[in-house]
Amino acid sequence: MAKKNLGTSFNIFPMPVVIVGTVTDGKPNFMTAAWITKLNSDPPLVGLSLGKRQHTAKGILQSNQFSVNYPSVDQVVLTDYCGLVHGYEEDKSAHLEIFTGTLEAAPMVRECPVSLECTLYHTVELPKDFFFIGEVVAVYADERVLTEGRIDPRKLRPFVLTMPGNTYWALGEPIGEAWSIGKALVGHRA
Amino acid sequence: MAKKNLGTSFNIFPMPVVIVGTVTDGKPNFMTAAWITKLNSDPPLVGLSLGKRQHTAKGILQSNQFSVNYPSVDQVVLTDYCGLVHGYEEDKSAHLEIFTGTLEAAPMVRECPVSLECTLYHTVELPKDFFFIGEVVAVYADERVLTEGRIDPRKLRPFVLTMPGNTYWALGEPIGEAWSIGKALVGHRA
Repeated sequence: MAKKNLGTSFNIFPMPVVIVGTVTDGKPNFMTAAWITKLNSDPPLVGLSLGKRQHTAKGILQSNQFSVNYPSVDQVVLTDYCGLVHGYEEDKSAHLEIFTGTLEAAPMVRECPVSLECTLYHTVELPKDFFFIGEVVAVYADERVLTEGRIDPRKLRPFVLTMPGNTYWALGEPIGEAWSIGKALVGHRA
Repeated sequence: MAKKNLGTSFNIFPMPVVIVGTVTDGKPNFMTAAWITKLNSDPPLVGLSLGKRQHTAKGILQSNQFSVNYPSVDQVVLTDYCGLVHGYEEDKSAHLEIFTGTLEAAPMVRECPVSLECTLYHTVELPKDFFFIGEVVAVYADERVLTEGRIDPRKLRPFVLTMPGNTYWALGEPIGEAWSIGKALVGHRA
């Protein structure tokens, strides 16, 4: 089959969805983000790309701290809301309950079953975004999403985003075990 | 509900899954990766964290080029295979069909419905990983995953990875429209 060249605009299929917490201009602020990845295991680093004009970017640069909160499908309306409104226009924290850990400027969202508390490790300045690399200093989780002490995706019930089309999707069926189902091809010639 | 502190080890829930293509030591090489994100729209940048000893990292540093290929659920065994085997141990390209665009050292996987062709834009050295930032110079897609010229997630049928547990999951049901369902909360006090 021939491939069609679509140009240079792209998206990741699909994107995880998180709520980032900061203290900006002295007030707790929350923003939905989907440009996020793990970077390095030791130390545990998380990377997050945010527009330079975002109220959240301003807060991270002010305090060198932030949180990353993982919503479940139950928080999809709250999550979308946190991506619709600017923090300098509306106090989004009125719609959620905040908890804090050891960091002063990394407010976390109690409604989200899992939260990461982060200190700023490094910032990469890009033309339109800052790529913030945070070191995870603690992971907080609700007992109800754990199985034998570890986060269970069937209980967390995360969701993802696809663009264009702007759709949130629940997880579907498991389709295979990683580092396992590919063994069928090892050592065999195609 | 009380939050439990799980320490500092974390994962993103869930992670997208891609196959990265390089030319390493003069030969096409492919590796599965899940630590990937979009970074900046203009220019269109994609970021990818890879262990410093990976054969794929070596190839990117040799040529300053790479590809990112999005598998569908139909390629889950091939994708898992490309994450199980080291490129210096086994020629993974024997199991897939390669196509190329304008770049010499960004071999792409024909079986994957969508591929990004990238030049290296910037490298961030982390303690154990390189974070490679690529500029997307072309997006290639199979006509069969397009609707009105745009990539349609219902046709692409991507999958995601969760850890711990090491499970691949298909997408499930759509649960809401982004930048829309949150409007119910705008301007209302909680």
